[in-house]
Amino acid sequence: MGNRPVSGGILALALLCGASPGFGQDPLPSWRDGAAKAAIVGFVQRVTDPNGPDFVPERERVATFDNDGTLWCEQPVYTQAVFALDRARAMAAEDPALKERPAFAAILTNDLAAMAKFTETELGELVAATHSGMSPESFVGLSRSWLRTAEHPRFRRPYTDLVYQPQIELLTYLRASGFKTFIVTGGGVDFVRGFAQECYGIPPEQVVGSSTKTRFESSEDRGQLLKLPAINSVDDGPGKPMNIDLHIGRRPILAFGNSDGDLAMLEYTYAGKGPRLMLIVHHDDADREYAYDRKSRVGRLDKALDAASRRGWAVVSMKDDWAAIFPEKPTGR
Amino acid sequence: MGNRPVSGGILALALLCGASPGFGQDPLPSWRDGAAKAAIVGFVQRVTDPNGPDFVPERERVATFDNDGTLWCEQPVYTQAVFALDRARAMAAEDPALKERPAFAAILTNDLAAMAKFTETELGELVAATHSGMSPESFVGLSRSWLRTAEHPRFRRPYTDLVYQPQIELLTYLRASGFKTFIVTGGGVDFVRGFAQECYGIPPEQVVGSSTKTRFESSEDRGQLLKLPAINSVDDGPGKPMNIDLHIGRRPILAFGNSDGDLAMLEYTYAGKGPRLMLIVHHDDADREYAYDRKSRVGRLDKALDAASRRGWAVVSMKDDWAAIFPEKPTGR
Repeated sequence: MGNRPVSGGILALALLCGASPGFGQDPLPSWRDGAAKAAIVGFVQRVTDPNGPDFVPERERVATFDNDGTLWCEQPVYTQAVFALDRARAMAAEDPALKERPAFAAILTNDLAAMAKFTETELGELVAATHSGMSPESFVGLSRSWLRTAEHPRFRRPYTDLVYQPQIELLTYLRASGFKTFIVTGGGVDFVRGFAQECYGIPPEQVVGSSTKTRFESSEDRGQLLKLPAINSVDDGPGKPMNIDLHIGRRPILAFGNSDGDLAMLEYTYAGKGPRLMLIVHHDDADREYAYDRKSRVGRLDKALDAASRRGWAVVSMKDDWAAIFPEKPTGR
Repeated sequence: MGNRPVSGGILALALLCGASPGFGQDPLPSWRDGAAKAAIVGFVQRVTDPNGPDFVPERERVATFDNDGTLWCEQPVYTQAVFALDRARAMAAEDPALKERPAFAAILTNDLAAMAKFTETELGELVAATHSGMSPESFVGLSRSWLRTAEHPRFRRPYTDLVYQPQIELLTYLRASGFKTFIVTGGGVDFVRGFAQECYGIPPEQVVGSSTKTRFESSEDRGQLLKLPAINSVDDGPGKPMNIDLHIGRRPILAFGNSDGDLAMLEYTYAGKGPRLMLIVHHDDADREYAYDRKSRVGRLDKALDAASRRGWAVVSMKDDWAAIFPEKPTGR
């Protein structure tokens, strides 16, 4: 038929055809030996051993990953917030009336003090204004164009280069072990879908996220959707398990997060029957990335760190457990 | 690793390893030769020909199917409504106070005249009462148990035997041709997920449907969801393209429905760029199944039939185009 499978398919294929997928070698070369790596490899071996007591059928091997701070860098601010600011500037350039609105005025004059004091209402208005008034396809086009040119202020690389190499290896290892990998992000679902296939090998329907409402319009038997300036779902905190149920329809057996916004997802995973693995990235590497946890404004990790300590969930030290942070070569674009 | 891929993977594998998937033979043996079958086979050949002008990359080969009346029998009433009635009777047996509520009273006395006059509010209350107050997992367990024992009043077979054999073949053919197949149903998403894998080979995350709200509850770091007696989303009419965007994240290139509730999905598919195929099951076979269209209370097909006529969408005659209706052997259970 001339078709080729997506990358997950190629790995599964290699396994089934008897070709070596390289697992005689280390499947996680950017993970240093230690408790976290041992927990991951041991868990995968247990749930995939058809003769063992912890075997999990392939259709139940669901792994969910937060995105910001778990799969890519979220400091000094969420990438999507940078996108929203740039988009607000571009919109104001086309429509000067927007400069009268306080949120836009602060952005245009780069008034960091005013921006730091944005209320939730102002932030919501900003997201609504910059993420609506177009079709979902147009929005994805815009966000992808932006990702192709924007650059991280410290690392001077495209944001899509700042995905975590150890996590790319983990996603690949899980898929080759019969898992389906999902992103469950507080970010906008269409924003993250714009790069998830290229950067993580995760197709759009396996990305769950926050969303705006849409309106359906039809004319001459042709239908279109319009993104509205109103929130449909905030995929953070309790919203994560709720959306996991709505979109994925079964409870993860592995969940990976990095902040209190992921706690509910970790608790939901932990409460399932049978073998479970809960993991948290601990950002403790100011040299190679950032160091932050209990007091951070972005990606606060406080209650979830206590829960991990109480329950023996794996806390992954970026400094100690990861031999590399970012890929040497770009993954997407 | 001792894992085996799901059935779609096996077919893709057979293709790629050069084994014959049987397509030297007819991939759609239960479809009679005619315009509908020719439209399907021609479309699949065009979008999978890498050297042709209509080639569509695998990741964009999204096919969406309505369920009731498109993949299985929806007459004389939706299967899920029969489930709700049986469940209401079981609930009233446990809680006699429910008998005081008019909707329950009508059901318990089998008052068909009163049931036929149920208002939308009463129907909504009934669905809410019978589909809430438990975890999503418990609900799926209940609905699966019911499907194992319930029987269709005319065909005297389990409802899961009343899937359409030609559509099973079509789903298999599409997946073997690099499509991802999705269900987009007005039915409850968890109800349909309870049998979609076994009957259609479609995993839970590829089932989009109507849903109730849920509440997240956590205790001792363990999280659970509770289904609430409130509607989250009605996946019918304009709700279908809205949920396709939310769950699938790209526009289908093939959509298959059977009623006006599918019109918006068909219009949304039709409006995309590049090759598209829109199909409608026309129930015109009273002998082997049912005959109904413009005046039917269940599965009304009126405006969508006009649109199909105007735009050349394929209208599939159950009587003429399908050599078989139901599988000889059960597909699920």
